[in-house]
Amino acid sequence: MPREITSFSNDTVKLLRSLRDKKARREEGLFLAEGLRILTEARDSGRLPEIIAYSDKGTLHPLAAEIVAATEAAGGDVIVTSPDILSKMSGKDNPQAILGAYRQPDTSLAALDRSAAPLWLVAQSLRDPGNIGTILRTGDAAGAGGLILLDDCVDPYSVEAVRASMGAIFTQSVAAASWDAFLPWLRGGAGQLVGTSLNTDYDYLAPAYEQPCFVLIGNESQGLPADYEAACDLLVKMPMLGRADSLNAAAAAAVMAYAVRASWRNR
Amino acid sequence: MPREITSFSNDTVKLLRSLRDKKARREEGLFLAEGLRILTEARDSGRLPEIIAYSDKGTLHPLAAEIVAATEAAGGDVIVTSPDILSKMSGKDNPQAILGAYRQPDTSLAALDRSAAPLWLVAQSLRDPGNIGTILRTGDAAGAGGLILLDDCVDPYSVEAVRASMGAIFTQSVAAASWDAFLPWLRGGAGQLVGTSLNTDYDYLAPAYEQPCFVLIGNESQGLPADYEAACDLLVKMPMLGRADSLNAAAAAAVMAYAVRASWRNR
Repeated sequence: MPREITSFSNDTVKLLRSLRDKKARREEGLFLAEGLRILTEARDSGRLPEIIAYSDKGTLHPLAAEIVAATEAAGGDVIVTSPDILSKMSGKDNPQAILGAYRQPDTSLAALDRSAAPLWLVAQSLRDPGNIGTILRTGDAAGAGGLILLDDCVDPYSVEAVRASMGAIFTQSVAAASWDAFLPWLRGGAGQLVGTSLNTDYDYLAPAYEQPCFVLIGNESQGLPADYEAACDLLVKMPMLGRADSLNAAAAAAVMAYAVRASWRNR
Repeated sequence: MPREITSFSNDTVKLLRSLRDKKARREEGLFLAEGLRILTEARDSGRLPEIIAYSDKGTLHPLAAEIVAATEAAGGDVIVTSPDILSKMSGKDNPQAILGAYRQPDTSLAALDRSAAPLWLVAQSLRDPGNIGTILRTGDAAGAGGLILLDDCVDPYSVEAVRASMGAIFTQSVAAASWDAFLPWLRGGAGQLVGTSLNTDYDYLAPAYEQPCFVLIGNESQGLPADYEAACDLLVKMPMLGRADSLNAAAAAAVMAYAVRASWRNR
């Protein structure tokens, strides 16, 4: 049976609310996902929330009712509450009618199975949670196995990143590591490391990329450090026809991911 | 000579501050751009601000000093002020050390010269200012002439869109129109209208796109309306290998823009 919560000062309300904060997410090992679309994506990927909360106003959508029932059957905490309290949990004025708190998976490189997909995206020190979510979503669409976050990236489990991923946070593997840990891991198995750079004339459409291909995307304002570029198996250049010589990091990741896939069409 | 402003209640402070609001931007015909990188992009595109404000702390960067001098020579209003007042103008806790208010250009379709570029991006009812800015930036990199905003798009001159454009708001032409005005304008000259859709099997890499090519991007959550798709000369599909069958609108625009350019490589 769902628990009804009517008090803003309830401990579970406070717990869910706290998950907007990175420190609390790390301590609890949980993260927040909001809205039926993302919760359905999670369920379809075999993931159920540990806590689920929905509004006591209106009828529950049949898909939402299914997820609530499955969460309850799995021993999860099911909460029915007011839109105002949902709003407090999500920190938004117009909250989604349902949200869930999910266990964060293991993000060690050791947990990553590189043979699971021919394409992997790797991002270095990305600072914008929207970019991380968008890159996860692109990875899902382009058939990547997941996203490896190097060095000082923002948290992929932030509310903003989860939202921008449109559920790809559940379909893509996520790993986090320093460059110094990543490079030996990469070289311990098959894999071509491809960086995009302005310091080469080698066109991004020229190579027949190897599998698995690891596409390395640099920080939003600095691009890739020189020694990271030097460690790549291949540096390629996307044409930059404008004045600014740059693309948004998530846009560059999308162009590269689809170019790599395109190079495999006639294999 | 620069005017020194020390009062938060100064009229120019209030004016600049008001430009965070769409209604004020429309009434004043101005918009705000912040930071030396974007102001330099503007200057290099032949655009100077009508009002320029910079911090009285520290030495002015030589590039900034050049832009300030050029603005003054052109009869612009030059303001030196405190970081706190700059912060109030920009609405940010850590404001850039320089900002400018620029005249909004004519965004009518009649002002657009389609022969100026082989590629144009067209977006329908985009709701996210970051997406609009990112698409402008992608257009700059991919050699597009500009961005045509259809129907109910958010304002391309918002602070968020200008920031995400990284200066491409000054290098790309921008037009805004309803679909009902756009279609006759398009058909009044040369141009292939290409939509991306899940309702076709025609692969996005198959065509040799015509010039000028108008790439039509749908709203973030709905995609393109059926009658817009029906009016396209060509519908193409990008492979969607994941569960979600969707890409972020700005990511999709980037993949399509580069695919269209790639189809012209061997002409």
